[in-house]
Amino acid sequence: VGEFDFIRWIRTTTPSAAEVLVGPGDDCAVLAAPARPLLVTTDVLTEGVDFLVRECGAFAVGRKAMAVNLSDLAAMAGTPVGAVVGVVFPRAHPIDPQELHAGLRDVADAFHCPIVGGDTNSWAGELVVSVTVFGTLKPGRQPVRRTGARPGDRLFVTGPCGGSILGRHLHPTPRLREADALAEFVHLNAMIDVSDGLSQDVSHLLAESGCGAVLTAERIPIHPDAVTLAARTGRPPLDHALGDGEDFELVFAVSEADAAKLRGGSPVPVFEIGRCVADRGLWLETGGDRRPFTPTGWSHAIG
Amino acid sequence: VGEFDFIRWIRTTTPSAAEVLVGPGDDCAVLAAPARPLLVTTDVLTEGVDFLVRECGAFAVGRKAMAVNLSDLAAMAGTPVGAVVGVVFPRAHPIDPQELHAGLRDVADAFHCPIVGGDTNSWAGELVVSVTVFGTLKPGRQPVRRTGARPGDRLFVTGPCGGSILGRHLHPTPRLREADALAEFVHLNAMIDVSDGLSQDVSHLLAESGCGAVLTAERIPIHPDAVTLAARTGRPPLDHALGDGEDFELVFAVSEADAAKLRGGSPVPVFEIGRCVADRGLWLETGGDRRPFTPTGWSHAIG
Repeated sequence: VGEFDFIRWIRTTTPSAAEVLVGPGDDCAVLAAPARPLLVTTDVLTEGVDFLVRECGAFAVGRKAMAVNLSDLAAMAGTPVGAVVGVVFPRAHPIDPQELHAGLRDVADAFHCPIVGGDTNSWAGELVVSVTVFGTLKPGRQPVRRTGARPGDRLFVTGPCGGSILGRHLHPTPRLREADALAEFVHLNAMIDVSDGLSQDVSHLLAESGCGAVLTAERIPIHPDAVTLAARTGRPPLDHALGDGEDFELVFAVSEADAAKLRGGSPVPVFEIGRCVADRGLWLETGGDRRPFTPTGWSHAIG
Repeated sequence: VGEFDFIRWIRTTTPSAAEVLVGPGDDCAVLAAPARPLLVTTDVLTEGVDFLVRECGAFAVGRKAMAVNLSDLAAMAGTPVGAVVGVVFPRAHPIDPQELHAGLRDVADAFHCPIVGGDTNSWAGELVVSVTVFGTLKPGRQPVRRTGARPGDRLFVTGPCGGSILGRHLHPTPRLREADALAEFVHLNAMIDVSDGLSQDVSHLLAESGCGAVLTAERIPIHPDAVTLAARTGRPPLDHALGDGEDFELVFAVSEADAAKLRGGSPVPVFEIGRCVADRGLWLETGGDRRPFTPTGWSHAIG
């Protein structure tokens, strides 16, 4: 690769955003004061957990690292302002920083999120990519939190889930445009992105909101990848749709009145998957038969 | 350790800052709109490069990770607003997350920088701690950049340098208070923190400013650690002061008039180490004998 100042290069190749007030060599990025609240989210992606760089290439790693952070911003119906990137390169096997950068930029540019700074190092370990995205809210909007779902609310998801491990997990599309369109159209009581698994993330949302939900098995949108994977694992496709994770779709709760509005014509694809109930817990209803359902998927707990 | 939600715990134990608008479970932290420009800086610290956790302990790792980021903010005379933390824990040997958190908080609290969110994971690799700090500027202040040094300016450093590897590198004090006091007292034309090595960081500042400098050997403040280390390495203590790095002092350039003001009584300890010249390059003057000096210290370039 030769000597290469990754961050300086990122900063000098980022289209001059009016908000970026300092140059590539400074200690901090400086952005114009956002007129509205500041949203901040960060995710650290690592070799063997989030990607296998020797299989997928550095471009895909860059794309995923930026996309999963923008997905968290989408989950609060935020608008991107900028991002900083920290990369730790492995010394043992070279990774093309320009390829990684191209992947980061590919997604960042598509969602108007200038990369304004960062940090690079190398070490004896494997590739680590840390992204922090900051954003704001459109005028008059409140951040959509996980806490606002209420009994009687209807639950929707923006797309089919399951089987992302077959490759889709490397190419998520942050649902920023969908969140924006939905926030214009209805009042989003609560929202979360599907990273840990549809049933797991619904449970996170319910736990924060202090209620429960009944999911309707027949209504869960199953991705073709879930069907393909099910043929290999022998498990039902629905299991994969409910448990696989890294779909990066949005799950949200709206009032019955807003649900009717969405059924009448949503500005973006949405699938109604269930309803919130007062009793805490999660149930799966199959052909009218309701049974308690233990959420499956990824756990962030430190064991 | 048992199951432990590190980020939730951080958020719930952070003293309620008026700026923090959302709860521990949400996808983004939300802060009140800063009235002035937003400064952002990020640094990723890794095992074997920035610390040896089995020797220094998780508390020291947390302290250092927060301090080096706040040091970058100090270098622009910024004021902390908040921080997010990303941690990747090694699966192979357990690290106490509460100890790590206590270290992060120890420094963050001392400088009124609430930890408002973050991300944790575990992997087969070693410990990684990524911190992103955002800050702002006091009313009427401009960010102090690296670009503003001019021929004739005087260079100062806030403390003695060298030998930090003997242990001091794990316990840096971000010079936020010093930067603030200096920014009130004089006009800081350019500033940088000493992370890569005094001569290396002076060179970074000069490169951005488009000028050179003559450092006066007799005036470089040498830390006692540099003397101790010199006795082991056989190199002169001055070499260690100029090249060792991770001192996290601030180097800054001011006009001759402001230099006179500082000599007359600076609000914080400062050491005058040289002056800027029009010719690009770095020289070391020893007893009136001026020779070109090749900066020593850490390089971030990807080899």
